[in-house]
Amino acid sequence: MKLYTYFRSSAAYRVRIALNLKGIGYEAVPVHLLKGGGEHHTDAYKAVNPGELVPALEADGVTLTQSLAIIEYLDETHPMMPLLPPDALGRARVRALAQTIACDTHPLTNLRVLQHLKGPLGLSEEAKMDWYRHWMNEGMRVLEAQLANSADTGRFCHGDTPTMADCCLVPQVFNANRFNIDLAPYPTIARIDEACAQIPAFQAAHPAQQPDAE
Amino acid sequence: MKLYTYFRSSAAYRVRIALNLKGIGYEAVPVHLLKGGGEHHTDAYKAVNPGELVPALEADGVTLTQSLAIIEYLDETHPMMPLLPPDALGRARVRALAQTIACDTHPLTNLRVLQHLKGPLGLSEEAKMDWYRHWMNEGMRVLEAQLANSADTGRFCHGDTPTMADCCLVPQVFNANRFNIDLAPYPTIARIDEACAQIPAFQAAHPAQQPDAE
Repeated sequence: MKLYTYFRSSAAYRVRIALNLKGIGYEAVPVHLLKGGGEHHTDAYKAVNPGELVPALEADGVTLTQSLAIIEYLDETHPMMPLLPPDALGRARVRALAQTIACDTHPLTNLRVLQHLKGPLGLSEEAKMDWYRHWMNEGMRVLEAQLANSADTGRFCHGDTPTMADCCLVPQVFNANRFNIDLAPYPTIARIDEACAQIPAFQAAHPAQQPDAE
Repeated sequence: MKLYTYFRSSAAYRVRIALNLKGIGYEAVPVHLLKGGGEHHTDAYKAVNPGELVPALEADGVTLTQSLAIIEYLDETHPMMPLLPPDALGRARVRALAQTIACDTHPLTNLRVLQHLKGPLGLSEEAKMDWYRHWMNEGMRVLEAQLANSADTGRFCHGDTPTMADCCLVPQVFNANRFNIDLAPYPTIARIDEACAQIPAFQAAHPAQQPDAE
């Protein structure tokens, strides 16, 4: 398998965690999102993913896009170390937790949106960071409520083994820490992030451990 | 089942289509997103969904959130009229198409974001609409490329029966039409939208057909 990745992309980070948890070896193809206006906007990369986003995964003769779709595909084709629970209600919960991050939080705070706020909208750095903190905190507030109010939450987001929800939580916390978001209001998120940090699969997926890390 | 819905919410619209396609009866509980500052921000609704978003679905003794997680749950628990293909690659494709809308497009153009642009950011109506058109067109461009360049696209997004991807496409086109986005650059999307419009399940889910329509 070939993973088009950028060390700091949190969507790529999710997929790296999933690949590592399942013990699937892969070739990392770095796509630099800043150099020369962004390598993801080159014709070569548009041919891989017309969405001009990372990650993309070449597997089984096709190119898959969208981090959550990729993780579900990996889970279906490599059933060892399942990343979704065996019951339909459990799967619905894990997917909803993942989507709270992947649909409601990250899309509002990712690189292309921050670039759009600074460029076409002409926002100041301070106003851009206000935007970042607003949506990041709103997402973390909801995720914390979902986790803290459920008996299904265990050592990890759902029970005592990592799931797709943890694959999303850890990169989101990495972003929060990078931009000095105070995690004190989110003790359950912080506790789960620490539990994940003990696991080699999560450690090896960390941005600082990537071949393209700066 | 009880669906917390708003006639014009495109995430709720997705779930209404899925329920109708499967022939699942449900009670619609309207949550007005504008009246009195938004009924989704009341304590009563926060107890239903701390995310303060629609839809939420009460089913099997629990409350489910996140439209795509809800649709997958309905598909797993009501296998008739499957909304995901039988093969893993097909499921990955349908999920990626759905997520192109639900992760990359809709979160940037939904009500809470538009309200934030006008309120805290103080953008003019014109600048707000520029933002709307920018992200809507970017999402439609990617979706069109994904659909037009694949032999898997049929009468619908994936083959000749509706899937979860069509449940997302139709509400997105409804939004585009509402804000006068020109669909000419997206002929495949427009063709699939017209095919869906022939189906009673899609017709009955249309915002204009809802009990809370204005």
